[in-house]
Amino acid sequence: MSLQNETLRDHACLIVHGPDQPGLVAAVTALVTRNKGNIVSLDQYSDDPEGGSFFQRVVFHRADLKAALPDVEADIATTLEPYGMQWRITDQSIPKRMAILASTSDHCLLDLLWRHRRGDLPVTIPMVVSNHTSTADDVRSFGVPFFHVPSQGADKTEAEARIIELLKGNVDFIVLARYMQILSSDFLAQVGVPVINIHHSFLPAFIGAAPYRKAKERGVKLIGATSHYVTDDLDEGPIIEQDVVRVTHADTAADLQRRGADVERAVLSRAVLWHAQDRVIRHGNHTIVF
Amino acid sequence: MSLQNETLRDHACLIVHGPDQPGLVAAVTALVTRNKGNIVSLDQYSDDPEGGSFFQRVVFHRADLKAALPDVEADIATTLEPYGMQWRITDQSIPKRMAILASTSDHCLLDLLWRHRRGDLPVTIPMVVSNHTSTADDVRSFGVPFFHVPSQGADKTEAEARIIELLKGNVDFIVLARYMQILSSDFLAQVGVPVINIHHSFLPAFIGAAPYRKAKERGVKLIGATSHYVTDDLDEGPIIEQDVVRVTHADTAADLQRRGADVERAVLSRAVLWHAQDRVIRHGNHTIVF
Amino acid sequence: MSLQNETLRDHACLIVHGPDQPGLVAAVTALVTRNKGNIVSLDQYSDDPEGGSFFQRVVFHRADLKAALPDVEADIATTLEPYGMQWRITDQSIPKRMAILASTSDHCLLDLLWRHRRGDLPVTIPMVVSNHTSTADDVRSFGVPFFHVPSQGADKTEAEARIIELLKGNVDFIVLARYMQILSSDFLAQVGVPVINIHHSFLPAFIGAAPYRKAKERGVKLIGATSHYVTDDLDEGPIIEQDVVRVTHADTAADLQRRGADVERAVLSRAVLWHAQDRVIRHGNHTIVF
Amino acid sequence: MSLQNETLRDHACLIVHGPDQPGLVAAVTALVTRNKGNIVSLDQYSDDPEGGSFFQRVVFHRADLKAALPDVEADIATTLEPYGMQWRITDQSIPKRMAILASTSDHCLLDLLWRHRRGDLPVTIPMVVSNHTSTADDVRSFGVPFFHVPSQGADKTEAEARIIELLKGNVDFIVLARYMQILSSDFLAQVGVPVINIHHSFLPAFIGAAPYRKAKERGVKLIGATSHYVTDDLDEGPIIEQDVVRVTHADTAADLQRRGADVERAVLSRAVLWHAQDRVIRHGNHTIVF
Repeated sequence: MSLQNETLRDHACLIVHGPDQPGLVAAVTALVTRNKGNIVSLDQYSDDPEGGSFFQRVVFHRADLKAALPDVEADIATTLEPYGMQWRITDQSIPKRMAILASTSDHCLLDLLWRHRRGDLPVTIPMVVSNHTSTADDVRSFGVPFFHVPSQGADKTEAEARIIELLKGNVDFIVLARYMQILSSDFLAQVGVPVINIHHSFLPAFIGAAPYRKAKERGVKLIGATSHYVTDDLDEGPIIEQDVVRVTHADTAADLQRRGADVERAVLSRAVLWHAQDRVIRHGNHTIVF
Repeated sequence: MSLQNETLRDHACLIVHGPDQPGLVAAVTALVTRNKGNIVSLDQYSDDPEGGSFFQRVVFHRADLKAALPDVEADIATTLEPYGMQWRITDQSIPKRMAILASTSDHCLLDLLWRHRRGDLPVTIPMVVSNHTSTADDVRSFGVPFFHVPSQGADKTEAEARIIELLKGNVDFIVLARYMQILSSDFLAQVGVPVINIHHSFLPAFIGAAPYRKAKERGVKLIGATSHYVTDDLDEGPIIEQDVVRVTHADTAADLQRRGADVERAVLSRAVLWHAQDRVIRHGNHTIVF
Repeated sequence: MSLQNETLRDHACLIVHGPDQPGLVAAVTALVTRNKGNIVSLDQYSDDPEGGSFFQRVVFHRADLKAALPDVEADIATTLEPYGMQWRITDQSIPKRMAILASTSDHCLLDLLWRHRRGDLPVTIPMVVSNHTSTADDVRSFGVPFFHVPSQGADKTEAEARIIELLKGNVDFIVLARYMQILSSDFLAQVGVPVINIHHSFLPAFIGAAPYRKAKERGVKLIGATSHYVTDDLDEGPIIEQDVVRVTHADTAADLQRRGADVERAVLSRAVLWHAQDRVIRHGNHTIVF
Repeated sequence: MSLQNETLRDHACLIVHGPDQPGLVAAVTALVTRNKGNIVSLDQYSDDPEGGSFFQRVVFHRADLKAALPDVEADIATTLEPYGMQWRITDQSIPKRMAILASTSDHCLLDLLWRHRRGDLPVTIPMVVSNHTSTADDVRSFGVPFFHVPSQGADKTEAEARIIELLKGNVDFIVLARYMQILSSDFLAQVGVPVINIHHSFLPAFIGAAPYRKAKERGVKLIGATSHYVTDDLDEGPIIEQDVVRVTHADTAADLQRRGADVERAVLSRAVLWHAQDRVIRHGNHTIVF
């Protein structure tokens, strides 16, 4: 899972998925070769060779990719049509545009901004939107625009509309860095790009609010964090990444929160990296992570 | 967490718990000293210094412990009475008697028998009781008696009565090594000793049957195992130990089961070791593990 | 990394490695397809797209594989010759024959025998050879032949010659399950099959004898185990797998040994599984593990 | 390992170590009680009950601690003199003063500053000293003074003298947050406070420079980081904390460096926290971490 920004020029990533059938890998690799692509990495997975679903990710180098892309796309469409496969191709040298929605907690937010500045996340960050102003100075010190959109009570219609205005057309995906507000189905439908959340528990344990308090009450010996795509069902979206850390009876709920914060930022940063690298394919309520 | 059988002679383990109050640790350590004990290890914990509960475990060496024990116990009773504390003292050189209840799965069962033979578990194993005969030869090859008590349909009254007959008076605690039968409240009340279970998930995720299938359906990225004391509430008893292992989209439900088996036996063996060493104190639905 | 013995019928595993060059993946997948193979899994890696080395593992299903294999092999040879690649193809339904060399420690030995009986290792075990007899009964209770070849002092020529006699022609690889004897270069040359060792430290820390004692002396906070291919250079062969476990100042050297035993058997079993599945490619002093 | 700043008022931490002998724990706990202290936590360890060394850490609450401390100290001195023990007592409400020495890498430095601002490190940070200016703005944005002391070639006498001037009398311990300069014995002797380093490998593997390159060359499957006290022997000081992360053949040396950075900052922050809480006792080349 190398991240070498300088070598991403003229690299394309092709994702193919659909009903599994013989000859698919050969068809895709032949396609890449006849379009003068040199395969850099290839992953494939079938959840059932007999009548299951097929998933493939190919990264290839192609000199003068930008100029060639329209022809390559036409060839892909023609080649894959008989197989009934879905596909998408991306120029790996073009970073995805990632908006961050945040609240008062700064650990996930600052970790993403710092990793981005360090060159470890192949994205641009056009904006951070928060319902509080406490992180404004920090965000702007990274050279990232900060917008304050307060959450106004139970009716979130207006706040969501304002956020949509800011995001619409400007972002390729959204990260909820401990945003702590439940987004409406309308918002998700309108915004039209993937939304990645970090939940502060090892889902499906401790769904909903206050998971660290619930973990303390249940007396668990490990606490965790889960990054997942947001869907209409709270905390039920496809899981991208999870991790845990060991705790003891002596850790208070405040300790769990403090220690969990480290797991949260680590898990979220991995999920964001993998999404940004087109390594994650959604399939029903699951993810395939190559 | 050293286990040196040869050095356990003349070692006592004193467990004290009850309402926290000033001077408790000093009272207990003075008590040990005036009874000619030399403290080898001491752990204490208070869940709230103001009005909370206090827990202490002291291991001390006392020459000629066996002869001295009645006097020591009398002194403990007198000393701790004004504090209203519960206590128990055990001679660490006397291994606890552990019965194992098993079914067709052999991984947890054989692991416990093998660790015991190796000298890594300070217990004796007076019997293995199983509702199948498939592991009988293996069990007996370790020199451990094997009894077959079939589970007869929905009504478990007769089977449980037969098991009670075998266990009654012969064991200090019971381990369910993937026994797969739910024990009745009556059984638990009659048997009168702690019962330790291994559940094949990271509780409270995937309570109940078929957790690996549920884990596959939910698409989690880690699977786990949980060892807990058995109570009337299924999978809700106090957790002693938990652990997890990383899995991917490519692991089938059968893979999860195979890989989970390693976590199950590791987690169960740690829980059994700690229980056998009097390291685990139950408190409501929690455990303090020293 | 699924292990489904029943579905391995008519499955071939093709390993290709050599100088990286454009079109290799396409050439191999086209080859598989024109030989009526359906690709089940494919992994590839290049350590440097410009002038580096290329490694590929393809598992494919081909009806009536056994009959077709000679033709497939001829096609592979013809196809890959211009590329100057090394290759090997195996029928995945034919388990590799694994000999185990052991000594007095039984933890790695019994773990491998138990996993094999459970169906979790796709190998046959034609023999266990030990320089002590202490494990003979256990080994034979698994239905596996046991041979005793004592180590006779400093001169191992005779013992090694006797072991060679037993192994020659009967095994596809050898596992040193805490064998504790250093094999001579002559032995390695004559035996002519891969030899996998488990070293009881996180190599390259604590090379040589008594690593747990050295770990205790250095005061490390983690101890580990390393499985590697045996070469003429002691503890310097290509590493297949490693893992660690947390320890504290309170763990004695005996504790480290006891706790390390669990890591050793876990690490060795993974290395053996991956080798048996043709997932490990040696390259200089490294391994590629697909 | 709870960190509750608000409850540290009137809390003292007493560290006792020296030759093990009967009655020590009782003597110390009686001492605390007669000085009106209420024991909050107590840890003790003996590396050998027969003629070994004894280590104890007691945290106790004592109303009006500041005023009482001189009397408490006098009592401790009198009580422990006959035992020949070393001891120190600290008022837990007074944070230690921590200086950070850094260079161009910002990951450990910023992580410490961020954790401090968040209230997760019970220290003050009077200064950051760096041999480069690249992190000056970041450091000052946290309200922490930044001093630039360039490393001037092979002769570090002048630079070290300048750093001593800055530190002398102003700090209780020093953290090398990837400082990358070897401090002279003279410097260590003059500065007179503990110095904590983070080494970017799992010591004792890969001692010295360029450990990630060496790890890549050796083909290890885990990389790690080690935090230790600095002594005259490079990378040989007492280890406080270590951790590892899994890597594969596909990770480049740059990947190892990027992924290792996360382990480095996590390991260093734990070592710093435990030192700041007086949890770490040095003993020869080892640490006892309570």
